[in-house]
Amino acid sequence: MDQKYHQGGFTLPGEAGYEKLTLELAKKWGADVIRDSDGTKLSDEIVEAGYSIYSTICIIRQHNAFAARHPDSQQQSFLCSDPVVATGDTLTIRPMDGYFDEQFELNDTPDAMKYWQVYDRTANVEVPRGQWTYEGGRVTINGCEPWHEYTVSFLCWRIWEEINMYNHTTNSWTSEHLRQLDPRHPEAWAYLQQWLEDWCVANPATNVVRLTSLFYNFVWIFGDSMRNRSRFVDWASYDFTVSPAALDAFEKAYGYALTAEDFINQGKLQVTHMPPTRAKRDYMAFIQAFVAEKAKALVDIIHRHGKQAYVFYDDSWVGMEPYGKHFSSIGFDGLIKCVFSGYECRLCANVDVPTHELRFHPYLFPTGLGGLPTFSEGGNPSRDALQYWRHVRRALLRQPVDRIGLGGYLSLTLPFPDFHDTIENIAVEFRRIRELHAHGAPLTAPVRVAVMHTWGSLRSWTLSGHFHETYMHNLIHINEALSGLPVEVRYISFEDAENGALDEVDVVINAGRAGDAWSGGEAWKSDKLVAALTKFVHEGGAFIGVGEPSAVEGYHTYFRMANVLGIDKDTGARVCHGKWAFDVAQAPFVLSAGALAKVDHLYLTDGKAAVLHAQDGVPQMTLNRFGAGYGVYMSGFNVNADSTRMLLELLLYVRDVKPEDIYLSSHAQVETAYYPADGVLVVANGAEEAVDCIVHTPEGDKAFHLEAMETKIVK
Amino acid sequence: MDQKYHQGGFTLPGEAGYEKLTLELAKKWGADVIRDSDGTKLSDEIVEAGYSIYSTICIIRQHNAFAARHPDSQQQSFLCSDPVVATGDTLTIRPMDGYFDEQFELNDTPDAMKYWQVYDRTANVEVPRGQWTYEGGRVTINGCEPWHEYTVSFLCWRIWEEINMYNHTTNSWTSEHLRQLDPRHPEAWAYLQQWLEDWCVANPATNVVRLTSLFYNFVWIFGDSMRNRSRFVDWASYDFTVSPAALDAFEKAYGYALTAEDFINQGKLQVTHMPPTRAKRDYMAFIQAFVAEKAKALVDIIHRHGKQAYVFYDDSWVGMEPYGKHFSSIGFDGLIKCVFSGYECRLCANVDVPTHELRFHPYLFPTGLGGLPTFSEGGNPSRDALQYWRHVRRALLRQPVDRIGLGGYLSLTLPFPDFHDTIENIAVEFRRIRELHAHGAPLTAPVRVAVMHTWGSLRSWTLSGHFHETYMHNLIHINEALSGLPVEVRYISFEDAENGALDEVDVVINAGRAGDAWSGGEAWKSDKLVAALTKFVHEGGAFIGVGEPSAVEGYHTYFRMANVLGIDKDTGARVCHGKWAFDVAQAPFVLSAGALAKVDHLYLTDGKAAVLHAQDGVPQMTLNRFGAGYGVYMSGFNVNADSTRMLLELLLYVRDVKPEDIYLSSHAQVETAYYPADGVLVVANGAEEAVDCIVHTPEGDKAFHLEAMETKIVK
Repeated sequence: MDQKYHQGGFTLPGEAGYEKLTLELAKKWGADVIRDSDGTKLSDEIVEAGYSIYSTICIIRQHNAFAARHPDSQQQSFLCSDPVVATGDTLTIRPMDGYFDEQFELNDTPDAMKYWQVYDRTANVEVPRGQWTYEGGRVTINGCEPWHEYTVSFLCWRIWEEINMYNHTTNSWTSEHLRQLDPRHPEAWAYLQQWLEDWCVANPATNVVRLTSLFYNFVWIFGDSMRNRSRFVDWASYDFTVSPAALDAFEKAYGYALTAEDFINQGKLQVTHMPPTRAKRDYMAFIQAFVAEKAKALVDIIHRHGKQAYVFYDDSWVGMEPYGKHFSSIGFDGLIKCVFSGYECRLCANVDVPTHELRFHPYLFPTGLGGLPTFSEGGNPSRDALQYWRHVRRALLRQPVDRIGLGGYLSLTLPFPDFHDTIENIAVEFRRIRELHAHGAPLTAPVRVAVMHTWGSLRSWTLSGHFHETYMHNLIHINEALSGLPVEVRYISFEDAENGALDEVDVVINAGRAGDAWSGGEAWKSDKLVAALTKFVHEGGAFIGVGEPSAVEGYHTYFRMANVLGIDKDTGARVCHGKWAFDVAQAPFVLSAGALAKVDHLYLTDGKAAVLHAQDGVPQMTLNRFGAGYGVYMSGFNVNADSTRMLLELLLYVRDVKPEDIYLSSHAQVETAYYPADGVLVVANGAEEAVDCIVHTPEGDKAFHLEAMETKIVK
Repeated sequence: MDQKYHQGGFTLPGEAGYEKLTLELAKKWGADVIRDSDGTKLSDEIVEAGYSIYSTICIIRQHNAFAARHPDSQQQSFLCSDPVVATGDTLTIRPMDGYFDEQFELNDTPDAMKYWQVYDRTANVEVPRGQWTYEGGRVTINGCEPWHEYTVSFLCWRIWEEINMYNHTTNSWTSEHLRQLDPRHPEAWAYLQQWLEDWCVANPATNVVRLTSLFYNFVWIFGDSMRNRSRFVDWASYDFTVSPAALDAFEKAYGYALTAEDFINQGKLQVTHMPPTRAKRDYMAFIQAFVAEKAKALVDIIHRHGKQAYVFYDDSWVGMEPYGKHFSSIGFDGLIKCVFSGYECRLCANVDVPTHELRFHPYLFPTGLGGLPTFSEGGNPSRDALQYWRHVRRALLRQPVDRIGLGGYLSLTLPFPDFHDTIENIAVEFRRIRELHAHGAPLTAPVRVAVMHTWGSLRSWTLSGHFHETYMHNLIHINEALSGLPVEVRYISFEDAENGALDEVDVVINAGRAGDAWSGGEAWKSDKLVAALTKFVHEGGAFIGVGEPSAVEGYHTYFRMANVLGIDKDTGARVCHGKWAFDVAQAPFVLSAGALAKVDHLYLTDGKAAVLHAQDGVPQMTLNRFGAGYGVYMSGFNVNADSTRMLLELLLYVRDVKPEDIYLSSHAQVETAYYPADGVLVVANGAEEAVDCIVHTPEGDKAFHLEAMETKIVK
């Protein structure tokens, strides 16, 4: 094996007290960088061993002394009380009831109180301020409508940094609760800059400052009941950026004032999975500009000290949108993304930043996601690593990153020597794939796929957060499948589709639940959008709708693209209408019925669509010729090797691409990538057992035998 | 057995050519009336045998000669073409494409054309009349928006009476297609009155004219494809009453004009299962008044001839609403209802008319519902009769009717002597039950149940049509269960609930799909309704919600009664919200989990409701204490003996009624009725096998052994 594949592009978490192990594994895994992990400090022996050094900083945390002196510099949020029914004309509500009082503290200062609101939720109207009073944690409402429900929307301080709170409550930590500062607070901001300045001086050996991440955590609201501890989690909500100062500044900048209700939204909050209001879009833009400006100032400090600034894209990331318009202006030298899934690799790889690094799983911790053992008794971290690698590898075959790495405590790996070998092999495969890309891009089928949803390119590849947080959405399954397919993928908004983006793609995918951000909701009230897509398909494009695509109330069909799909969902008015009888047709590609959901009330509009799968007499997948193109409907999409293969074959079918054109294998678990510059074919087995298969090539079929999870790289 | 139970209250279908059989069975079954059946004529021997004679008339049918002379006297309807996509700026549509041309014929006369409309369905706007032209069955639209979908709404003649069309197409009849006259046509109306006059003179032996039924059939639209022959069926739609004359008269009466779109409704039509528009409500009232006026004129003719007028409530019944305000003004002497189900008995029994008669199933035809054999090889009509009787008996135990009867051809029963015995027994049981009622009402639990939906009392007991036509609606299952329970049942509208009706009931049931007429849709935007129900429950009432009760968009909860139910359905915005963990609690009554559906996205609002059943971690039945009352949620309700028992025990539980208070049996299949006037207890076994059970009575438990389907009547 060429030595060049054994070194470089690898970040190792060093561990003080295990200097020998650190340096041994650095050599075995070919590390060029050693990093600290959260809460650890590298020893001099490691720091001076000649490796580049990453040091982790969470800029807004670990300043409890300052926070104690300046409690008004802490971060805030709006909360809404649980609704309470008035049984008479007076009602008293304790707004904090049901919230975790170690996380939140009422903010009843005058500048906060002006943003409080009381709502009659039954009538859906605000209660005039003169009708309610506040005293000692209680709001008393007078002149209630008896039997209506009321809520209080209020501001509160966030007195426990959420990641610290999570670690405490999950891992029974007992250390001091860490607080978090709001950089919008002028004294806090001055303090943070000076603190970073001092830190850089005090850490001369650090080459890369690894920011985890910036200022505002994703929204995570704890309740006081253990039966509903995690009351709300949204990885892309901006609610934790709120403060009277931010709201006042917004009003000045945008010329209109936001209210608590703009965030509270009847208690539903403004979740990322739903289409945003105009106010939310404006507020996001406002925060993004603020975060970029402040982040740039920090990066400038780091650069002035001759260090690089990498950002870890997680936790306090809010406002720093890697696909937002301000990101590149911050001047980061690298983006580090922890990956469970293929789509997260593509997300990272595509960002406009010099260095792209992946933090692999499993994390070197005793337990992994969901509390199962990894580096503890009963764990099998080597198997875990390979399972994650299976997802990552196929994405890396399509698009490279620059670096990979691990996090956590090396000493925990000692009882698992096979894990050491597995990571060594993965690192070698990573470097070989990276080198292929360096010589030229892999062959891609002439199929340009646009995933179309409300957020467009801002939410390229991700919905919000990791797969296990968003698994209930069909689209994340589709993103994951696409992340390793030999097709071009882009993310467009509905506005993009109306304004020419369709000219540059061959297939449009719209996958979501009616009314959500992924399906599109009210965006489908645009005739221009419907007409543009209808034209697009009629002239040869393909529209793939999944779940409740293009669904909106008010028109002759519920799916606005029913014209193209040949299928629609009845919302009740068609219960008296006859349904077209059909025979299930043989799909012209491999069908994975298990990928589909069971959606009720679907019916064929004009009876012409071919039904490829049905359940209880209801079509669940259809293929409809429309003009020169196709409308394809799937009731759901659950990602696995079979459904991924179905999606690929479907994409090839609607664009008339032959298997040999893209070196398609005969086995769903075996994926391929052909690199024309080197004349190299990579054949990767995703199965946990050996597989024999054929790869169809322009030069004829080739037979392959692959061991479990084997990657074959052949000329 | 007392001879009085062997005679009377029974209508037998006589059959010419089988005079001996007719008279034998008349005696065996205790008939006092002999009727003809559709298309038959009784022989003199039967007519003169001393029985009362019913003769069947379908007043608007069988006048083909007149229709040929006056084609403009035929009935009409609006239809809407299938939508067509414009690929350029001109588009031609043949409106009749897809419709059955033996049922419909374009009406392009000038007075019809003024009601035609062309719609751009993509933009949801009407195309101005100047932009389209009509010629030879084709509409040409100019100035189209390319890639928009267009439809043509048009008037057409209905040239084949729908029941005749159904019999022809189903049973391969070859006789002449029967046409139907519109009584709104002045010459037709004069003709029909004279025809009835003549008929009465020509049929002196007839005692009762049995009208099947009046003028306008329920809506049944046939398509030209055998894959979708029955394009639309709505048993309570008024669309077949339409004509330019009717629309012009409506405008005169109501001061505003209706358009085709008021009926076409984007191609969805105005189905009974959806909340009506204001225009539809007005139009229904307009037609009801017209039908009542014309019906009264016919009844007056019949009465003048010394005959009685009974109406068969089916087929051409539209506008004659038995619970409408005009029904009693018509002056019918009897209402005949064909029954498959218990709810149809209650529907009939409760109408304000002197005589209530049930036509039992099976009909004496070779095949029954769905084409299965009854009186032909492989049939078991005796078993069928008992299965229907099981449903009917429990309803009759609660509320009596005056008469029962059969329809069809007696000769077909010859090979089935056990059927003769079964009907004899049923008739005896019917008369015994009827006698008990004559002495006084049965004991009813102090539970006054209101079923609440859009139509209120107008659609008491039924939704529209038979059970097998409406089985997909939870409410018909609930109606069927209620039809035999020892509780008081009434039907109220949302307006009734807002205006005092809740003062007179103990339990309110709301069961439907979001947005439909049974759930209520927009009616739930009324704060007054929500407040009234909240108060009702808080003060001790019970609200039972089934499926998507009280669901409407726009509020903090999707179920407006979530406050009372403690459960709600997430429409997407709560995907980031934590869900309350719960243990499934033991229900304080017998639970029938099989009765429930699987509804996704349900969540506990405040965590307080007891979850009685869950599926895949989602609660499907909950019981919530609210003030002094209860909110109960069921995800669905599928009627059978077990679910009926669950509903009964639930009703008793929320009102704290003890089993012995209402003579509850220990077996779900065994229902009881206690008649205080006679001190008689009826114990009825609904099982097809013998059952041993206990009946809890105020005097202690009593043991019973009942044979399959046995009815025990004990002092």
